[in-house]
Amino acid sequence: MTQLIDAPAGLKGVVVAETAIGDVRGGEGFYHYRQYDATALARGRTFEEAWYLVQAGELPGPAELAAFARRTAGHRALSPRVAAALPAIAALASADRPLQALRAAYELVVLDQDMAPWLDISAVELASQAIVTGAVFPTLAAGLHRLARGERLIAPRSDLGHVANYLYMLDGAEPSADRVRALETYLISTIEHGFNASTFTSRVVTSAGADLGSAVIAAIGALSGPLHGGAPSRVLDMLDAIGTPDRADGWIRAVIAGGGTVMGFGHPVYRTEDPRNVMLHRIAEELGSPRLELAEAVEASALKAFHELKPGVPLHANVEFYASLVLDAVGLPRPLFTPTFAVSRVIGWAAHIAEQAGNNKIIRPSARYTGPAPSVNGALG
Amino acid sequence: MTQLIDAPAGLKGVVVAETAIGDVRGGEGFYHYRQYDATALARGRTFEEAWYLVQAGELPGPAELAAFARRTAGHRALSPRVAAALPAIAALASADRPLQALRAAYELVVLDQDMAPWLDISAVELASQAIVTGAVFPTLAAGLHRLARGERLIAPRSDLGHVANYLYMLDGAEPSADRVRALETYLISTIEHGFNASTFTSRVVTSAGADLGSAVIAAIGALSGPLHGGAPSRVLDMLDAIGTPDRADGWIRAVIAGGGTVMGFGHPVYRTEDPRNVMLHRIAEELGSPRLELAEAVEASALKAFHELKPGVPLHANVEFYASLVLDAVGLPRPLFTPTFAVSRVIGWAAHIAEQAGNNKIIRPSARYTGPAPSVNGALG
Repeated sequence: MTQLIDAPAGLKGVVVAETAIGDVRGGEGFYHYRQYDATALARGRTFEEAWYLVQAGELPGPAELAAFARRTAGHRALSPRVAAALPAIAALASADRPLQALRAAYELVVLDQDMAPWLDISAVELASQAIVTGAVFPTLAAGLHRLARGERLIAPRSDLGHVANYLYMLDGAEPSADRVRALETYLISTIEHGFNASTFTSRVVTSAGADLGSAVIAAIGALSGPLHGGAPSRVLDMLDAIGTPDRADGWIRAVIAGGGTVMGFGHPVYRTEDPRNVMLHRIAEELGSPRLELAEAVEASALKAFHELKPGVPLHANVEFYASLVLDAVGLPRPLFTPTFAVSRVIGWAAHIAEQAGNNKIIRPSARYTGPAPSVNGALG
Repeated sequence: MTQLIDAPAGLKGVVVAETAIGDVRGGEGFYHYRQYDATALARGRTFEEAWYLVQAGELPGPAELAAFARRTAGHRALSPRVAAALPAIAALASADRPLQALRAAYELVVLDQDMAPWLDISAVELASQAIVTGAVFPTLAAGLHRLARGERLIAPRSDLGHVANYLYMLDGAEPSADRVRALETYLISTIEHGFNASTFTSRVVTSAGADLGSAVIAAIGALSGPLHGGAPSRVLDMLDAIGTPDRADGWIRAVIAGGGTVMGFGHPVYRTEDPRNVMLHRIAEELGSPRLELAEAVEASALKAFHELKPGVPLHANVEFYASLVLDAVGLPRPLFTPTFAVSRVIGWAAHIAEQAGNNKIIRPSARYTGPAPSVNGALG
């Protein structure tokens, strides 16, 4: 018999893996990808550079970057078979569950690619599955959005960067450099963020030897959980409901008094301001977001109210709060907020999948049976 | 900062939950669902009774059973929208990845049902999602199989039991009582089996608050991993390769000497014969399996060879070994073996999802960063 060890509820603080992909220092308000400050990467690099870094462990040189950008751009287009099946998914999808629709669409790619378990292929082939997956996510997200509105698919352009092409596929117009840069900063900053439930899910599925697609699909499911993924669009809905800065104080206090949730606050790891939020606040300013004044008033009211009504609880605005302003100012419609998050986070999942595959042991914990004692003699009672 | 605790690799022996659904006593060769010996249930009860027991915690009375059977039968048929989209999935699917196809098909049901996160619905509604899911799995598996062979879908019959109807949907013929009973015994015996990787996956996804569909989809991915799900069809392929009983000894020794894997042996928990296998061996006999003599010779050769070449390792035939003979004798084609396993295991997953939702804490472990130290000052080097 294996000796059983009781773990803290939710495995909180239990180290289940070593990782060289990145880390979140919750007490310092700092997080990094490989050896680089993540917000500095988000400000100073392209999405392709950050993608390469997270996947390969080093920033690319100019020639490596050019080859990587060419390679990823070459996998943006849907195969004719996937493009033909996508409308069937869009027709079934509900506007309220954009991650479910994205996942079902990605299933088509997994089938079309005939993705084999990593156990049966080389690390190079696994990395190739990761590139195909990261490259096609924006095409699926944009395509589903257009089909849902009765519009035709717009084919990707390989002469645009990953982020510019995503915006292009939404409406067929070449986006301004400012919009691209703001969205790119957001996307880089959300590629990876420690051992959250979706990342852990991707590693559990990988640990069974499954294909990358199965692990990514499982992670999308975890991300769709309201306790994990959240949804920046809920912050905008809240700001709409509050309406004007002078109403913030009363509205927030009424929600707290009623036991409700103020959207966009609190994080399981950060005990400081969320560094992503600090950066996204600045970007919302730079973009001239029309909701900035309102958002700042709501943030100030919320922090004040938490301080008074929930003393000792270090609640700060989280990444959702100013992300909602940035995504809105960039021109993304609200139903695309969570799929857009998945467009970036899938890069992080893929890195964790490769890392787990590189040093694998199946993740198979135990449970303690607490029900009535069974009859061991085979009688059915 | 949270205090970090190092866990054994793969969380082996780490108790992550309490459960009243069942338990596996690996040292005793015994497992149970709720308070009942699982093999006794498999021998003496219908699939609907075992399903009700695992979900509700008690065996049904006659009136409860009749109502439950009526209710599940009412959810077997595909909606017109799902039926219309299913051929697109079948057209993309590879014969080598039947679980991927089943998962993609089930995505259509999840979209069609507009499945809401359990966090947003009642326990009664969650149980209803579970019934819809368990009821439709055989229809999806049988439907994909027929479409892959260019055949038309056969609509389910609500006057047949769950298992009889599954066989009926494969070829349109009402199956004999013997075939139904043998398959029913197999299916009941595989509903649930402790905290394996797929069951744990379903609980991790559920812990984020996600819908039942997301958790089931994630679990299918884990099950598709060669280190978890295995595949009884590989045992048949091996028996075919060996051919005759007299060749078993030499073949097995050659595989072990070459560092290969003998299919259908070994289990992470049992240190005895797998009780499922003991039962399925008997059933293969009762069915008059034409491969029985060969299988028994291979089992004997393998145990002898393991004893000599790998002394001290308690290797026994596992559930895959005689399950392959039973599924074959029942008339299931090999590509349906793993989807058929999912047809039963989804009932177990659904019970774990409900149990996790009933007493939830998000499962969010930690990792230890072991890469190069990052620059904290924001410089990109």
